[in-house]
Amino acid sequence: MEKIKIIMDVDTGIDDAIAICLACGNEAFDVLGITTTYGNRKLEQTTENTLKILELIGRTDIPVAKGAEKPIIKVYEPEDYSVVHGYDGLGDMPDPLPTPEKKPLDISAVEFMARTLAASEEPITLVPVGPMTNVATLILTHPELMPKIKQVMLMGGSTLKGNASPVAEANIMQDPEAAHILFKSGLKISMACLDATWKGYIGFDELEDFKNDNWLSATIYDMCGIYAEHYKLRMKNPGLAMHDSLTLAWLAKPELVKSKDCYVTVDIDGRYTYGMTVTDVRNVLCHRPNATVSLDVDRVPFINMIKEAMANLAAQKKGR
Amino acid sequence: MEKIKIIMDVDTGIDDAIAICLACGNEAFDVLGITTTYGNRKLEQTTENTLKILELIGRTDIPVAKGAEKPIIKVYEPEDYSVVHGYDGLGDMPDPLPTPEKKPLDISAVEFMARTLAASEEPITLVPVGPMTNVATLILTHPELMPKIKQVMLMGGSTLKGNASPVAEANIMQDPEAAHILFKSGLKISMACLDATWKGYIGFDELEDFKNDNWLSATIYDMCGIYAEHYKLRMKNPGLAMHDSLTLAWLAKPELVKSKDCYVTVDIDGRYTYGMTVTDVRNVLCHRPNATVSLDVDRVPFINMIKEAMANLAAQKKGR
Amino acid sequence: MEKIKIIMDVDTGIDDAIAICLACGNEAFDVLGITTTYGNRKLEQTTENTLKILELIGRTDIPVAKGAEKPIIKVYEPEDYSVVHGYDGLGDMPDPLPTPEKKPLDISAVEFMARTLAASEEPITLVPVGPMTNVATLILTHPELMPKIKQVMLMGGSTLKGNASPVAEANIMQDPEAAHILFKSGLKISMACLDATWKGYIGFDELEDFKNDNWLSATIYDMCGIYAEHYKLRMKNPGLAMHDSLTLAWLAKPELVKSKDCYVTVDIDGRYTYGMTVTDVRNVLCHRPNATVSLDVDRVPFINMIKEAMANLAAQKKGR
Amino acid sequence: MEKIKIIMDVDTGIDDAIAICLACGNEAFDVLGITTTYGNRKLEQTTENTLKILELIGRTDIPVAKGAEKPIIKVYEPEDYSVVHGYDGLGDMPDPLPTPEKKPLDISAVEFMARTLAASEEPITLVPVGPMTNVATLILTHPELMPKIKQVMLMGGSTLKGNASPVAEANIMQDPEAAHILFKSGLKISMACLDATWKGYIGFDELEDFKNDNWLSATIYDMCGIYAEHYKLRMKNPGLAMHDSLTLAWLAKPELVKSKDCYVTVDIDGRYTYGMTVTDVRNVLCHRPNATVSLDVDRVPFINMIKEAMANLAAQKKGR
Repeated sequence: MEKIKIIMDVDTGIDDAIAICLACGNEAFDVLGITTTYGNRKLEQTTENTLKILELIGRTDIPVAKGAEKPIIKVYEPEDYSVVHGYDGLGDMPDPLPTPEKKPLDISAVEFMARTLAASEEPITLVPVGPMTNVATLILTHPELMPKIKQVMLMGGSTLKGNASPVAEANIMQDPEAAHILFKSGLKISMACLDATWKGYIGFDELEDFKNDNWLSATIYDMCGIYAEHYKLRMKNPGLAMHDSLTLAWLAKPELVKSKDCYVTVDIDGRYTYGMTVTDVRNVLCHRPNATVSLDVDRVPFINMIKEAMANLAAQKKGR
Repeated sequence: MEKIKIIMDVDTGIDDAIAICLACGNEAFDVLGITTTYGNRKLEQTTENTLKILELIGRTDIPVAKGAEKPIIKVYEPEDYSVVHGYDGLGDMPDPLPTPEKKPLDISAVEFMARTLAASEEPITLVPVGPMTNVATLILTHPELMPKIKQVMLMGGSTLKGNASPVAEANIMQDPEAAHILFKSGLKISMACLDATWKGYIGFDELEDFKNDNWLSATIYDMCGIYAEHYKLRMKNPGLAMHDSLTLAWLAKPELVKSKDCYVTVDIDGRYTYGMTVTDVRNVLCHRPNATVSLDVDRVPFINMIKEAMANLAAQKKGR
Repeated sequence: MEKIKIIMDVDTGIDDAIAICLACGNEAFDVLGITTTYGNRKLEQTTENTLKILELIGRTDIPVAKGAEKPIIKVYEPEDYSVVHGYDGLGDMPDPLPTPEKKPLDISAVEFMARTLAASEEPITLVPVGPMTNVATLILTHPELMPKIKQVMLMGGSTLKGNASPVAEANIMQDPEAAHILFKSGLKISMACLDATWKGYIGFDELEDFKNDNWLSATIYDMCGIYAEHYKLRMKNPGLAMHDSLTLAWLAKPELVKSKDCYVTVDIDGRYTYGMTVTDVRNVLCHRPNATVSLDVDRVPFINMIKEAMANLAAQKKGR
Repeated sequence: MEKIKIIMDVDTGIDDAIAICLACGNEAFDVLGITTTYGNRKLEQTTENTLKILELIGRTDIPVAKGAEKPIIKVYEPEDYSVVHGYDGLGDMPDPLPTPEKKPLDISAVEFMARTLAASEEPITLVPVGPMTNVATLILTHPELMPKIKQVMLMGGSTLKGNASPVAEANIMQDPEAAHILFKSGLKISMACLDATWKGYIGFDELEDFKNDNWLSATIYDMCGIYAEHYKLRMKNPGLAMHDSLTLAWLAKPELVKSKDCYVTVDIDGRYTYGMTVTDVRNVLCHRPNATVSLDVDRVPFINMIKEAMANLAAQKKGR
């Protein structure tokens, strides 16, 4: 089977870290590179975290390029998601991952994406799981490369309720104008959104098994303490939502995700609705759909896919 | 048991007509008057329809006052809801209701509400089931009467999806600024919204029984042809949504409605979200709730309440 | 000559006080009543100030009705204009005007305007010189009385620069939505705006003469200390702008004001332009004009008109 | 004297064509390159026009790179400025300029600007005289190159009245969000705006002299027929506004322009004010200025500068 060529765009946090493991540990994917953005933490931190994870899993061959420090138009007031991801963005483990030796490329995220797309004979899938700033900037700068983008499989948005405001999801809310540019671009878009990602959780009990599965899942277990607490106490979710990983599962096994083609616009000027993905699920507007929207996920096989990826990676390297 | 004193504010339409029947045929209510507004049709039509229904059910004793012709700020482009309610707003029956003899009062809706509130010793419940224009104007004009308003039990809004736009419900969408004034007023508000009203339907089969129940329900049956078609073909709802009646059922038997106290704002400036009731169901903003929001309804007893009211009215008058 | 029947709507402040003197001391006007609004100070204060001025000039026969406490939609955060008008709104004179004996009517401003319009055989001119809240509420509540309004001669707006924001004038900025309702109403509107009112000033030297002209002008002189300071130090205007009085001078002697018919809209949703009177002076939009806009004033006769009115009033009453 | 290194960003139209002549014919400038954008006409046309002008004046050594086809966020509905610039954007001359042999570079405008900035030892001045799309995209893509930008000397905006709407100028109105990005960027900005450019005109009589001055000015004379008509009939300006050239005159002889440092924001969400440069001339907001704004120009030496540049160019090449 041919591998799916992807470029991930991450703001590494805990669920980004797990998504990187899934991408690298599942043979469906050929990870051509990872670009970084502000989001769960500031850019310097998310970039360092990305490098740390790649060293942890022994994949320092994957190039990393540093991207946007702030949104396109919105005034940047960094969100403090330390209650979700810890101050260091990787759970503030007692035994933290070491400072990485690997450095990012000396070209920017957009430059890296552009060169990789230009050099590739076949179209590439972009997988942004943070704010859409880098992808939107690529769209603005390189209209000539759009045919090289197979699709944009993003994590973000919601058809229901938000987590950053009553109606807006955090990735979109952090740069609504970037998301607006993306949804108006004409690119093929799949939106892995809260409707499904809240249901794509690792149960609190299931997480306990991670301790003994292998050295990598044990490390992830250590990382997840604060993240589990957040979902238990504040979100009252039945487990830890694997937001970012859903994009990859959906790519590798489309049958796991229940979805619908919808017309989606991103609100960029409402006082109370800024950053909302206005999703016309009932097709009130009779517009042609511009995105495939995730509504539900087959949870158990999804979580198993994450576990298998970790087991694969753990088998390929001796330990931390 | 003491009766609930109410003033209804209607844009009569088919489901308004049924709601008037429910209010007048259920002994829980003392209907002090009915005010009218543009909405399902233009003001002249909705006022005439209201008078027609009162003559039909023999309740010409209830005063009717004519209200707003257009929204407070929004540019008025009359919505054409003839596909839902018929050109005449009452289903374009082959044997239409006669032109009413009764006339509206020669004072305005706001004037009527103000005088009635001022004259009443106990607080009164307002039941607006069209655009909120009249109620908002009352709030602006008579701040001194606010303590006389027991609560505003309105039909409008949604926590989920809309029917007038992907996210906005028709009553609110027709005058978002009026709804904004209401939700910021500090009045006690109950919002009978689409989440519950779509579930509060008369099944298509159940409607057939109306033909034989009594002369009034038979007339309502004749009226509902186009309305039933709309819910079957376009809305793909399992039956005819009894939007406006839910307000009255909720007042008479609060236990029929599952609800939650939420902070609600009405979007008045978003390109794609104008008229949306942004409902903080998960309390992301940690604001104090300003409305009780209907989430579900116990359908069968709700519909039975409507049928009983019709039976009562039919027993009190000989026929059309 | 027939007198011009007016109802003034004021937020008394210093220049409102002078405008009341002009209206009452110039025989061109028949002042049918004065309504009050929040604005330069809170409603209680502006109402009391209005009563104080009427007692000062011996015109307790003029009815006063209390109006709006806050804007229609905008969140009310009272502006502190104490640096312009003093804490008491009348210049914090060492020898302040006594607490008035006269009380406001027990009907509201809107009610008073409505009854006066309804009872009048000939149309009446409304002269709002504070936020447009009362007038907008009248428009919403009494569409049937619109033909009784001869014109609305308002103080507010600007075609150039603002005083409350870079582009918005204070009266309009305090209730942009009310002004929007007024400018969309179809009423005949004259807008005495900053373009002309800044030029309609009493020079700092000229003000000195007020001390000796008569007992009333001497009182006004005492009142104007803080107001003069504001225009000298902060506004760098060549004198004290007689904003509110311009409306009356324009009514009494139209030839004093250079004006242009323009299409005016009030911005109600721009982040940086909220409350701006967008005035199409060059007719870029090719819309039909909805307002006559003041561009300049013949200063000396304007100021003389104010002085004469004071002399007239001073001659009719013995002193403070 | 050291030359001023500039990159021009143009949407060639007639006044852009004259500005290119001024830049190339005045020895103050070292024109490193010209980038193009949609604006007065569509991108293909403005790019071809730019190449035509360079061939006309014998400066095919200057590299040209093609830029944005549409605004960053605004829905692109191409403005039809054919009444100002002709269908071909260069006045629809009876004897039109030939199809150019020179081709644009095969890298994009942003890429060209980025490489040129990166390669330069000293900072470079950007001179955008069309929509700000290319400059904004450069800012988004290459934050690391900002220190290499000496200043942005732009044509656009107004402190007074607009030409594309009552309050917005055409260049800014065509991509308000791009202008917003620029004004928030922290770059040193000079804004050659309508306040001064309307005053920087070639009188209709003066234009007649162009016929006989030299072969180049005679060609420009032929080009200017439709442009002169526009300013005479529709704009009622005393002559042909040399909007785009003002940027260059201001750079070469700053003493010609009267200016003020102001805080400028670009409205991106007002219904009636979209695209307005809200300029705090009176410093009501007490913000630190972010732009130097042109208020007036010394017209005669400005126009002479244009004529001299043409004479210089005409002397260097034999004719069309």
